Amino acid sequence: DGYLGWPTGLIFASRGCTVKLVDNFFRRKVTEELGCSPLFEVADMHARAKLWNSLHGSKIETEEGDLRDFSYLREAIIQFKPDAVIHFAEQPSAPYSMSGINEAQFTLTNNLLGTLNLAYAVKEIDPDIHIIKLGTMGEYGTPDIDIEEGFINVRHKGREDKFLFPRQASSLYHTTKIQDTDLLYFYVRTAGLRVTDLMQGPVYGFWVPDMGDRTEFATFFNYDAIFGTVFNRFLVQAVAGVPLTIYGKGNQKRGYLNLIDTVSCIELAAKTPVKRGQLRVMNQFTEVFSVNELADIVIEAASKLGIKTTKEQIENPRKESEEHYYNPVHTKLEELGLTPTRLNGQIVVAMLEKVMQRKSFISESAIQPTVRWN
Amino acid sequence: DGYLGWPTGLIFASRGCTVKLVDNFFRRKVTEELGCSPLFEVADMHARAKLWNSLHGSKIETEEGDLRDFSYLREAIIQFKPDAVIHFAEQPSAPYSMSGINEAQFTLTNNLLGTLNLAYAVKEIDPDIHIIKLGTMGEYGTPDIDIEEGFINVRHKGREDKFLFPRQASSLYHTTKIQDTDLLYFYVRTAGLRVTDLMQGPVYGFWVPDMGDRTEFATFFNYDAIFGTVFNRFLVQAVAGVPLTIYGKGNQKRGYLNLIDTVSCIELAAKTPVKRGQLRVMNQFTEVFSVNELADIVIEAASKLGIKTTKEQIENPRKESEEHYYNPVHTKLEELGLTPTRLNGQIVVAMLEKVMQRKSFISESAIQPTVRWN
Repeated sequence: DGYLGWPTGLIFASRGCTVKLVDNFFRRKVTEELGCSPLFEVADMHARAKLWNSLHGSKIETEEGDLRDFSYLREAIIQFKPDAVIHFAEQPSAPYSMSGINEAQFTLTNNLLGTLNLAYAVKEIDPDIHIIKLGTMGEYGTPDIDIEEGFINVRHKGREDKFLFPRQASSLYHTTKIQDTDLLYFYVRTAGLRVTDLMQGPVYGFWVPDMGDRTEFATFFNYDAIFGTVFNRFLVQAVAGVPLTIYGKGNQKRGYLNLIDTVSCIELAAKTPVKRGQLRVMNQFTEVFSVNELADIVIEAASKLGIKTTKEQIENPRKESEEHYYNPVHTKLEELGLTPTRLNGQIVVAMLEKVMQRKSFISESAIQPTVRWN
Repeated sequence: DGYLGWPTGLIFASRGCTVKLVDNFFRRKVTEELGCSPLFEVADMHARAKLWNSLHGSKIETEEGDLRDFSYLREAIIQFKPDAVIHFAEQPSAPYSMSGINEAQFTLTNNLLGTLNLAYAVKEIDPDIHIIKLGTMGEYGTPDIDIEEGFINVRHKGREDKFLFPRQASSLYHTTKIQDTDLLYFYVRTAGLRVTDLMQGPVYGFWVPDMGDRTEFATFFNYDAIFGTVFNRFLVQAVAGVPLTIYGKGNQKRGYLNLIDTVSCIELAAKTPVKRGQLRVMNQFTEVFSVNELADIVIEAASKLGIKTTKEQIENPRKESEEHYYNPVHTKLEELGLTPTRLNGQIVVAMLEKVMQRKSFISESAIQPTVRWN
């Protein structure tokens, strides 16, 4: 039901797969509670799937369910007999995970118990099921060496071995993703599972071609300080006519990708399942930008629409390096056939135009950060 | 209340500290359920602490409590105002963690929620409190390079950075300890906590000098296939007159230490608290043995007591390397003043003699492994 899950479901249904969407509606509930509703109205999961099925003659099943409930998950897998499970069921917000003990506990137990239950159910029911798990580039942090895709050979005192690339994250949420990678890798080695772990960078955008022009198929687009990613927030700040807020110096670099590419990557991963007992890690992003560079891109595109906006530095609510080396490898998905959708002025203008249609729904108060790391 | 916690409490009380023992009695409950009671009778925690206090005029407080309960833990720390918290509150059995989904879930949530709650409470109440956490050498697994004490410098493509030493464990329990290290390291970096993480090898023995000759102060000595460590199991098998069971080839090497040295290490760690924002990792063992070498040591010592016993290879219930490189560094605790208690014939004979006094209580059926990794 979430930002990435719904468009991924559409793509797989378009390709002729039978798709089952399972969600516990955490995102809907908590964004409503926190007053950070998505910019575009998001239809009920069951209803929009039904509409899709009636228009396309395809089959998207939907069910309310929670990965923390092993009995439910086990039964769902036995009944549906999936070839692949795409695991998007994690609490995905760094600020949320840092906002209090209850949120920290929820993030830890939701993300780890969900992943444990999935690995365990697949191991028991059918270890041939391919688990495709959304990791994050944030697991690696910002080390002073080049970031490889998942693994690294370490030479030490004249000997050598291959290890998971060292991971060191800057939020509790990102730390739970490191822990998930450890968990899945453990069951890959012990139970011979087949796992693809996608180290994804921050995603931007809200449209994939399969949605066409129907607003009923809009995805969960957050622009607030809790669930919004930085580029999406900039789009909305520009349209709202407020400065683009830069956390700290703004030289933090990350690897970004368009939502269109996210779903392509998932499709490519699913088409090329890994062997039993293999953990494949791919770095899922297309271009590296600093926060300042992203802001400049939005400012320039906005100016073409007659919107004048500026950057505003604020104290960084997070604890992260604001000047750092960043050179992550990202070749595996391109090798599988990914054609990157590059960020350019035309794309940004098109996104801004759609955001402008919802200008009156923008909540400026939701944009300012309220959660501080210390 | 456990195998290591109780003797550690005695040592600190002997040194004049006010000690508070907190336990949820998981070990007592589950060993009774599983029919693997400890060899020596273990008095009620409250009663034996009371006896100790009356004999020594010292102050060991005791309380039933659970680290998974944040409100309880928070209040306990506020009330007691500790200088250090020694965190022994993890589910410590690899076979238990591998025995079913309920046990897997319990291990994950007990170990991670407990550690999260502790880090969070210390961060909120008083970040100067020194957290001393029992990790395990099993976090490192058996890599093909030398194992350093916690961290390693990695050179890669002409650049260099320092990382946590790569970790890759061979049970779910050991994996949760990797995850705990990640969790504590995160709060060290973000909230400036002071943490010592002790990568301990398997412990053997059941006596520390502070117990004297009083059986009321005996600790929780398990010899069964679920909670017993390998050397302790061999002692009991020898006395029971059954062959010492070797899992697989028996060339698995680990770093071992005497219970006497465990408590010394904790004491040394507590005496030298680390600075704010520092994670100190020390490898806590004194000697490396293969399983076969341990068995031979027990067989030879037993023969001096007229007990004839042999080794018996059985199919390895675990999934682990049975032939591997193993060269872990362990200098930090010696540098702090640890004088290793080396394993020799005399010590083993003394242990066998004490076990012989409880020969009639040995449950042979508890010794055979029932949990298989796959």
